Amino acid sequence: MQIIKGGITSPKGYKAYGEYIGIKKKRKDMAIVYSENPAEYAATFTTNVVKAAPVLWNKELYDNNKKISAIVVNSGNANACTGQKGIDDTKKMAEVTAKELNINADSVIVASTGVIGVELPMDIIEKGIKSVAKKVDSTNESGTLAAEAIRTTDTFTKEIAVVFEIDGKKVHIGGMAKGSGMIHPNMATMLSFITTDIAITKELLAKALKEDTKDTYNMISVDGDTSTNDMVVVLANGMSGNKIIDSENEDYYTFKKALNIINEYLAKQIVKDGEGVTKFIEVIVEGAKNKEDARLLAKSIITSNLVKTAFFGQDANWGRVLCAMGYSGAKFDPLKVKLDYESLGGSITLLKYGAPEKFDEDKAFKILQEKEIKVIVTLQEGDANATAWGCDLSYEYVRINGDYRT
Amino acid sequence: MQIIKGGITSPKGYKAYGEYIGIKKKRKDMAIVYSENPAEYAATFTTNVVKAAPVLWNKELYDNNKKISAIVVNSGNANACTGQKGIDDTKKMAEVTAKELNINADSVIVASTGVIGVELPMDIIEKGIKSVAKKVDSTNESGTLAAEAIRTTDTFTKEIAVVFEIDGKKVHIGGMAKGSGMIHPNMATMLSFITTDIAITKELLAKALKEDTKDTYNMISVDGDTSTNDMVVVLANGMSGNKIIDSENEDYYTFKKALNIINEYLAKQIVKDGEGVTKFIEVIVEGAKNKEDARLLAKSIITSNLVKTAFFGQDANWGRVLCAMGYSGAKFDPLKVKLDYESLGGSITLLKYGAPEKFDEDKAFKILQEKEIKVIVTLQEGDANATAWGCDLSYEYVRINGDYRT
Repeated sequence: MQIIKGGITSPKGYKAYGEYIGIKKKRKDMAIVYSENPAEYAATFTTNVVKAAPVLWNKELYDNNKKISAIVVNSGNANACTGQKGIDDTKKMAEVTAKELNINADSVIVASTGVIGVELPMDIIEKGIKSVAKKVDSTNESGTLAAEAIRTTDTFTKEIAVVFEIDGKKVHIGGMAKGSGMIHPNMATMLSFITTDIAITKELLAKALKEDTKDTYNMISVDGDTSTNDMVVVLANGMSGNKIIDSENEDYYTFKKALNIINEYLAKQIVKDGEGVTKFIEVIVEGAKNKEDARLLAKSIITSNLVKTAFFGQDANWGRVLCAMGYSGAKFDPLKVKLDYESLGGSITLLKYGAPEKFDEDKAFKILQEKEIKVIVTLQEGDANATAWGCDLSYEYVRINGDYRT
Repeated sequence: MQIIKGGITSPKGYKAYGEYIGIKKKRKDMAIVYSENPAEYAATFTTNVVKAAPVLWNKELYDNNKKISAIVVNSGNANACTGQKGIDDTKKMAEVTAKELNINADSVIVASTGVIGVELPMDIIEKGIKSVAKKVDSTNESGTLAAEAIRTTDTFTKEIAVVFEIDGKKVHIGGMAKGSGMIHPNMATMLSFITTDIAITKELLAKALKEDTKDTYNMISVDGDTSTNDMVVVLANGMSGNKIIDSENEDYYTFKKALNIINEYLAKQIVKDGEGVTKFIEVIVEGAKNKEDARLLAKSIITSNLVKTAFFGQDANWGRVLCAMGYSGAKFDPLKVKLDYESLGGSITLLKYGAPEKFDEDKAFKILQEKEIKVIVTLQEGDANATAWGCDLSYEYVRINGDYRT
């Protein structure tokens, strides 16, 4: 299993393109991904009750077991809270894409990301789709253009590809994603698109995605807000030529491992590019009663505004970590907790069995000055572990979100 | 029912004092409240699993039906996550206070607020208690000194008093509270102390407090963090001479109304003094399926970082309000939602039946420039209403919490 240069166009039979069509002020805002072979399709969607029109569309395709030939994505406008017009506009996006690519509208996944509550400028969108659809190509470069075009406040492009072998065949999997505000996936996630040329049944593709999402996208948070548009989509077009995976055999687990590399990488990239981020925080919880408690604890810590501002301030105010654990909903005995901070700057123990450890403030400051910091929580409740990834809360987050829309 | 000048010393038989004893750098940090008559006592405590030592102490007094003669509070140190020493220190605080006031240690409520995970400086605390206990007095001024001494990052003092009549007797109720970070009470609250000279059974005092807390302290949020030290304490010493309230009669509801005035006022003051606040946001949810949904929706809106930063930026980015409703956990049909903003600057409708309304950006800006803004959500699901109070998220919040401890 090897990480290679590339992204969604790395697997066989996928083409893509992205460019500026005029929804945003200047930056690229329209992407299309195309698969030569109609692909099996699995997805997880936002749990937000307010679902954007494209989420509803894609859910219907999924529920009706449609195979997928293309994905069309616009950034700059989320097409959420736009009523019936939003629903009509999504359908129109699928239809225009389908016509250009000579496929069926019900084989087109639609995604929109950006500001909520503004109607799509459909004249610009239709013209844009026609232009982008003509240019889809299988090079790494065109994959990158697509990854660039799905960005909103993201400051860098997030893509990755992995190659591995299954029954003598080279199999590829690639992905692209965007963040970077309203990030607090809950049994679902932000926009993430994964392509693979593996042959696998829809059932197992869906199972692998669902399970892996719990440990990747669902374990990150930038600001505690679960978006209306979150989705992870994975397409598998079978073009690598492997014998189709139709049981949970060794090949399935090999694929799942590759999928995990893609998902964990993209999830972490989203956090690293969180709005206003200056620190990347990895929270490791060990020895929890069960997996669910471990996840709750890790996630509660990375979600706390007070923990986040303390990291921004490079302050070893670890009491806030304990406080966030305490209101997580998980059960544990505070008198059995050990807490460590660790980074390239060194490591310190702050709390042992519920009582504070004396620590050297200079040493703590040296650890907290680093850009990537680990928070390690050890309980004595059981043997379940979980890791969550988050970021600090900075002035810059407030600035970006005080003026995002205007 | 009339609001009068005063606070916790307004009811008959209560004395108080507060002064600087040396826990914090400069500001007052020790307060004592004393009741001539041992008082019936009701309280709600933090739901955080990590409970500070004083919370455990007070809970035990409550569970053992102790009558209360005094409250001792230090600010600048929360005595939380301090292990066995923290527990011993709390007991010592009660004992020293009891000795000075010639009462029993198990009639003394103890509260601590400030940084978590640092041991109390007991030599300073003991000397401080002795000094403050000697000076307790029944004037308004000494009540205010106590209210000042329980502050941490609060920028103003929060106190209120109400007088009303029950069976021919003048009854008083007074309160003081402190915020202003780690504010997201959950079936409990921050520090709030209420005194009254009413005669009422412990059962009904507890019932009135519990019910009213749900609509007051539990409906505010500054930063989504539920503290380890939250508590509301109400003492009733019976000195007004009214016939004891021992059933849910008219007198009980009169008292409950007065209690609500105190609690709602203090809860709103805490939000208005939230760390870094520039806007006070009142969220009114009407027409929800049931009370629980109405509360969930209102609270989810005021807790969202993205909603909060939009208000800080004076941006009518109302899609974030819908998004926060969507992940609140409450069930509703987005296509039946109406959303209005209102302030001294005017009012606008932003969304009607799930579709955006065209609105004048200048008019919106005029509304959002005001310091107090109402967000009015109308559903068509039922007839339950709820109101929540919150604030914006500003650079100043990040600054305060980036360097609170050091």
